Amino acid sequence: MIFFITFAPDMNYPLNNIPERPVKPRQSGITMVMDKGLSLRQTEDFIDVAGIHSDIVKLGWATSFVTPKLKEKLDIYRSAGIPTYFGGTLFEAFIIRNQFEDYIRVLEQYGMEYAEVSDGSIEIEHDLKCEYISKLSKYVTVISEVGSKDATKIFAPYKWIKLMNAEIEAGAWKVIAEAREGGNVGIYRGSGEVREGLVDEILTQIPQETIIWEAPQKEQQVWFIKLIGSNVNLGNIAPAEVIPLETIRLGLRGDTFDYFLNSGK
Amino acid sequence: MIFFITFAPDMNYPLNNIPERPVKPRQSGITMVMDKGLSLRQTEDFIDVAGIHSDIVKLGWATSFVTPKLKEKLDIYRSAGIPTYFGGTLFEAFIIRNQFEDYIRVLEQYGMEYAEVSDGSIEIEHDLKCEYISKLSKYVTVISEVGSKDATKIFAPYKWIKLMNAEIEAGAWKVIAEAREGGNVGIYRGSGEVREGLVDEILTQIPQETIIWEAPQKEQQVWFIKLIGSNVNLGNIAPAEVIPLETIRLGLRGDTFDYFLNSGK
Amino acid sequence: MIFFITFAPDMNYPLNNIPERPVKPRQSGITMVMDKGLSLRQTEDFIDVAGIHSDIVKLGWATSFVTPKLKEKLDIYRSAGIPTYFGGTLFEAFIIRNQFEDYIRVLEQYGMEYAEVSDGSIEIEHDLKCEYISKLSKYVTVISEVGSKDATKIFAPYKWIKLMNAEIEAGAWKVIAEAREGGNVGIYRGSGEVREGLVDEILTQIPQETIIWEAPQKEQQVWFIKLIGSNVNLGNIAPAEVIPLETIRLGLRGDTFDYFLNSGK
Repeated sequence: MIFFITFAPDMNYPLNNIPERPVKPRQSGITMVMDKGLSLRQTEDFIDVAGIHSDIVKLGWATSFVTPKLKEKLDIYRSAGIPTYFGGTLFEAFIIRNQFEDYIRVLEQYGMEYAEVSDGSIEIEHDLKCEYISKLSKYVTVISEVGSKDATKIFAPYKWIKLMNAEIEAGAWKVIAEAREGGNVGIYRGSGEVREGLVDEILTQIPQETIIWEAPQKEQQVWFIKLIGSNVNLGNIAPAEVIPLETIRLGLRGDTFDYFLNSGK
Repeated sequence: MIFFITFAPDMNYPLNNIPERPVKPRQSGITMVMDKGLSLRQTEDFIDVAGIHSDIVKLGWATSFVTPKLKEKLDIYRSAGIPTYFGGTLFEAFIIRNQFEDYIRVLEQYGMEYAEVSDGSIEIEHDLKCEYISKLSKYVTVISEVGSKDATKIFAPYKWIKLMNAEIEAGAWKVIAEAREGGNVGIYRGSGEVREGLVDEILTQIPQETIIWEAPQKEQQVWFIKLIGSNVNLGNIAPAEVIPLETIRLGLRGDTFDYFLNSGK
Repeated sequence: MIFFITFAPDMNYPLNNIPERPVKPRQSGITMVMDKGLSLRQTEDFIDVAGIHSDIVKLGWATSFVTPKLKEKLDIYRSAGIPTYFGGTLFEAFIIRNQFEDYIRVLEQYGMEYAEVSDGSIEIEHDLKCEYISKLSKYVTVISEVGSKDATKIFAPYKWIKLMNAEIEAGAWKVIAEAREGGNVGIYRGSGEVREGLVDEILTQIPQETIIWEAPQKEQQVWFIKLIGSNVNLGNIAPAEVIPLETIRLGLRGDTFDYFLNSGK
């Protein structure tokens, strides 16, 4: 599953046998970053150092509602060629208020090209959720999210698979496996430990490149990279953790140092 | 206790039934931020994105002693209309050295309009503490703090109430309930869990708008917002957590999403 | 062990009995900072507020490989008079690939004046490690690191002492006691707790000013400052924690407030 090149031309020195990373825009190896309230200049700083390693940025949950200069911020990302989307909780906040039409106007008003459809905080018939995915797909690229933010709501693996398949069929570009900013619900236990059996079973039925695994904690990132490889799609990465994650993907941090050298032999 | 408006004019889109937030300067709903060493530009960045949601900034403990360009930094906050004060540990550092008069000169020299009086690290007769509150009230608005930084010093609820009342009477504008940057002493257990009985009892005797609850951890913020409402006074908020906190206050993050919708009905 | 001055001229106000800190460049009291991916402007911001308290900056593990504008970044540190070095994992990445000569060329190309020699992720004969220290000492000032990043590899105290002594003899300027960014291996237990007996024993044989203790967690910093004094060498300090650490060194944060006042008497 891992291919090696002898020199990564955009990197700083000639180090042999570094795992290959596809160039952006890419379908796998995606790093989805969570911006939970960067200022305009902090956004520029993030892009300056980590933009080349970042595929898409989520403005976490409904932070966009209370963020000043939102349009300018979105423009900064746009100029850097990094797509953005509003977190699923914002979609849910409009749905629970019967304001779906308003949500579409908000997406238009801000020129959004992506949107998330989720049901992490609301209860909604799955058919209806898929209908929203389908409707929004006419306007934007839809990312859908499976899994509750409520730690007491645990789905069996077959249900994760069923939900994911239906959402992809309804038009979702990728499905996200829920973890929150903390990395302690959905595909993780309260301790942050991966529900390994769940992930294994999902991967028997859903192509890995269709899934973005939320993995805010380093141990979670390492676990998925060891399971699936450098080019697994990972999400909810904090802006300051994009550079560290990139080194983990390349086997250049202690956690995966051995792994890639051995598997490359 | 919760009032709803149908449109928050300074926010980015028309979302119905959002809890109302009073405009600054306000007596309740205060977000007190802890700056533990921002550079000048980082201070500007913080204000740029979170200034409208921040009521007052504490330069944590005695960080102001080792922060270069302190005057310029205070001027940046002042220009943005955000009052600042030095953490109580600085007051205590002057007191323990018998330098109270020097402390007053420092407040004058830096044009401070607020000061904290605390006894988190020193032992001091409570009458004497109240005397300092009273004396400083002639120069500045005093915020006093109750609770030790020492996790082994636990007060009974009646004592918290007695101390708080005496300090308000001595001239304190607000009393702070101690938690430290970590959120693991005072009103919290070592695990960060709230001493619920203590808080309940305090609230039977002290008006909630007179208290600023230090609540650096998200779970602590959520707990107080669910108990008291959107407009509880919260403190020791990290600069990068002000935007997230604002969404929690408004029911726009998973943690309080349900709570406000239900209580609003 | 602690000397007091009555006024620290570069500080903001006249506070008596503050522990003395030697001026830079210094052999003890060093704060070694870990930069794990700051942008150019973030680097400037860090220097602006914490540069005067920072002795040397490590570009963590192999983050320098994936950091854009690396030369510009190194120049910013250079202009501020703060030496930098690449984390030991980068050295190891070159060694494991049989590219030691390339590594020397990289050090030359970027004008590095310091380098780290470590074996945290690779297994290497100690004689060979010392040979690398000795060879690199001809080009740069060498910092060597003892301790594995693998939590299951635990050395007895006599072995730490033997390794450290051999590395100093081979030409290392300082030896670093391993802890990682997390502070949970090497001289610490998985919980972050210090292996106290180990540290005590090391200090009977190795002069404290020759060692830099990695201490990313506040409790670890406090522990070492209480054991050795204000001017212990501490490493892997996050940029935003340099100001807080400086206050702990000076007895101006709750954690060491009492300690210095009592020991000063």
